[in-house]
Amino acid sequence: MQSVIDVNLPQNRYEIAIVPGSLDNLGTWMNGKESKPLHLGEKVLLVSNPAIFKRYGERAIKSLTNAGFEVFSVNLSAGEQYKTLNSIVKIYNTALENRLERTSTIVALGGGVIGDMAGFAAATWLRGINFVQVPTSLLAMVDAAIGGKTGVNHPKGKNLIGAFHQPKLVLIDPQVLKTLPPREFRAGMAEVIKYGVIWDADLFAKLEECEKLDQLRYLSEEMLQTILTHSCQAKAIVVGKDEKESGLRALLNYGHTIGHAVESLTGYKVVNHGEAVAIGMVAAGQIAVDLRMWSKEATERQNELIKKTGLPSKLPEGLDIGEIIDSLQSDKKVKSGKVRFVLPRRIGEATVTDQVPPDVLRQVLLQMQ
Amino acid sequence: MQSVIDVNLPQNRYEIAIVPGSLDNLGTWMNGKESKPLHLGEKVLLVSNPAIFKRYGERAIKSLTNAGFEVFSVNLSAGEQYKTLNSIVKIYNTALENRLERTSTIVALGGGVIGDMAGFAAATWLRGINFVQVPTSLLAMVDAAIGGKTGVNHPKGKNLIGAFHQPKLVLIDPQVLKTLPPREFRAGMAEVIKYGVIWDADLFAKLEECEKLDQLRYLSEEMLQTILTHSCQAKAIVVGKDEKESGLRALLNYGHTIGHAVESLTGYKVVNHGEAVAIGMVAAGQIAVDLRMWSKEATERQNELIKKTGLPSKLPEGLDIGEIIDSLQSDKKVKSGKVRFVLPRRIGEATVTDQVPPDVLRQVLLQMQ
Repeated sequence: MQSVIDVNLPQNRYEIAIVPGSLDNLGTWMNGKESKPLHLGEKVLLVSNPAIFKRYGERAIKSLTNAGFEVFSVNLSAGEQYKTLNSIVKIYNTALENRLERTSTIVALGGGVIGDMAGFAAATWLRGINFVQVPTSLLAMVDAAIGGKTGVNHPKGKNLIGAFHQPKLVLIDPQVLKTLPPREFRAGMAEVIKYGVIWDADLFAKLEECEKLDQLRYLSEEMLQTILTHSCQAKAIVVGKDEKESGLRALLNYGHTIGHAVESLTGYKVVNHGEAVAIGMVAAGQIAVDLRMWSKEATERQNELIKKTGLPSKLPEGLDIGEIIDSLQSDKKVKSGKVRFVLPRRIGEATVTDQVPPDVLRQVLLQMQ
Repeated sequence: MQSVIDVNLPQNRYEIAIVPGSLDNLGTWMNGKESKPLHLGEKVLLVSNPAIFKRYGERAIKSLTNAGFEVFSVNLSAGEQYKTLNSIVKIYNTALENRLERTSTIVALGGGVIGDMAGFAAATWLRGINFVQVPTSLLAMVDAAIGGKTGVNHPKGKNLIGAFHQPKLVLIDPQVLKTLPPREFRAGMAEVIKYGVIWDADLFAKLEECEKLDQLRYLSEEMLQTILTHSCQAKAIVVGKDEKESGLRALLNYGHTIGHAVESLTGYKVVNHGEAVAIGMVAAGQIAVDLRMWSKEATERQNELIKKTGLPSKLPEGLDIGEIIDSLQSDKKVKSGKVRFVLPRRIGEATVTDQVPPDVLRQVLLQMQ
């Protein structure tokens, strides 16, 4: 069982390989096929976090060494609060100590935070070196690792500092999900549901067929492979058509507008990213219903999936509605002062609008308290 | 008198406008032509240093405001020692305070250091916003401002942190050079001479015709315009053919291999960048002669130009040859441990090689002590 998805960008073309057990063949995958070598240099800097490294570092290094790479590593504390320029400086220092060259490669082994940081370091060391993503969380596999968004947080806002830097390969080993904490699994499922709503009605239907969705162990290997493949495909197609988010790619922000505000206002501590996106999707769905853009029945189906996955659909307690609305204004997706929302039109199709009346927004948020 | 040079890159196309007095029309230039608007948003963040800002800031702001832009500004200390991530954070903070958007523009008003930093901030704020270069030093006009190289220094190495980020416009007002300190003028002339040697025999001949080259006042307005135009054209063509320095662009590093080592080993305090490049060109010229790649007569013509410009051709006192050679190994242009040199073949033509025997290199450096 294996899926290989092509990501086609004007100046970059790379593969997302979803292959159970592939962590032990990372080095071989990084060498590429004989007919299509990847040219990833000799030196590899593996960026990970202590917990992931302890679990999977040795296997990754062994595989890379066997494939002929010279491997160095650096571990960074994981968690949004460590996604800072200071962590990037640690990567820079390791890159310098080990004299990484322009042809060298940084490999991210970890979740979205590690991928974002390793990618930003790769984007900015020697003005850009090779980068490979080996995501270990569901969220990173279906979202963060694909599409080249890299970066860190500014003390006053998430992901404000960053660059587009495409990986040369995304290698997904679904087996590593077995050690993922259930709450993180559910967070990743929020993005999977998102693809179902905005892009892939088939995926949505498959999720509806599942009796339980709140833990990995309820999914068969085949279903997991299907979910990963559909999700990565959705992201790859959207990114391939719009690398820099001038249009289509904005659809991927479904649930993220209000989601980001909720995350940020609760200091990234109360809800995680996926939970915030779930809350944001419930809100956006209701806004779309109120604007008569999609049906009450469809939003209920979406909310049922969110519930089945064990994700929240209410705002965290104590959050001020006025503060949320104010926070939306400072989001980096604001264009000429107008907040852009992604709203669904039907299952599998969404649109972008900056025409949400403030009172509709306020009313929906009030209902979600 | 005005020259407009096209820079043609696969995904970017922009103009270098060399127009006396154009600082007062910066806003108009940034709006673009009616038939070809530049779409640089509403908000502009002007990045400069205190001395330049005092001299030219008001004129730039007035012109931008008159053209309809909302202008903010931030001043950073100039000088290589301030080209750090800390300075970039200052730009980020100002960008955040003034809520710069994805459509906003950062304008660099200053020399190469300001341009590199403002450009890196533009490359990495909100994953990349618009950028405009208004270079005020000769070095920045003919080199740093063109081609999209941006970045800052790592405590242990120059320009190790950075990104490629092309400007939307380079606006050069030769009149601002009148206030440039003579030593900085000469530093810029080193890059002009470089273009003559590696690319443009016409430019080289024109420089030879000048009786004096060590101060701006010896140049007629026409000669200055010619020098700027030829130099920018050379850089634009090379960059247009090879944005990311995989081949041709490496030619622009003529004089820079040994130059960087000299700068770095003297702590960026004894010689400035142009002086270091002059020393590097003398060295590279002699290496090429010793390897029978170009003639003794040609290298003497080059060295005569360097002398006439008042640039150094000897290594700074007290510099250890062994240390220089060791430092070359850690240069970011090193590929698989081999040091790459750009060597001239004739006036107007150069080549890249990593086949310089260590004893030839050592011998040449010894002669230059």
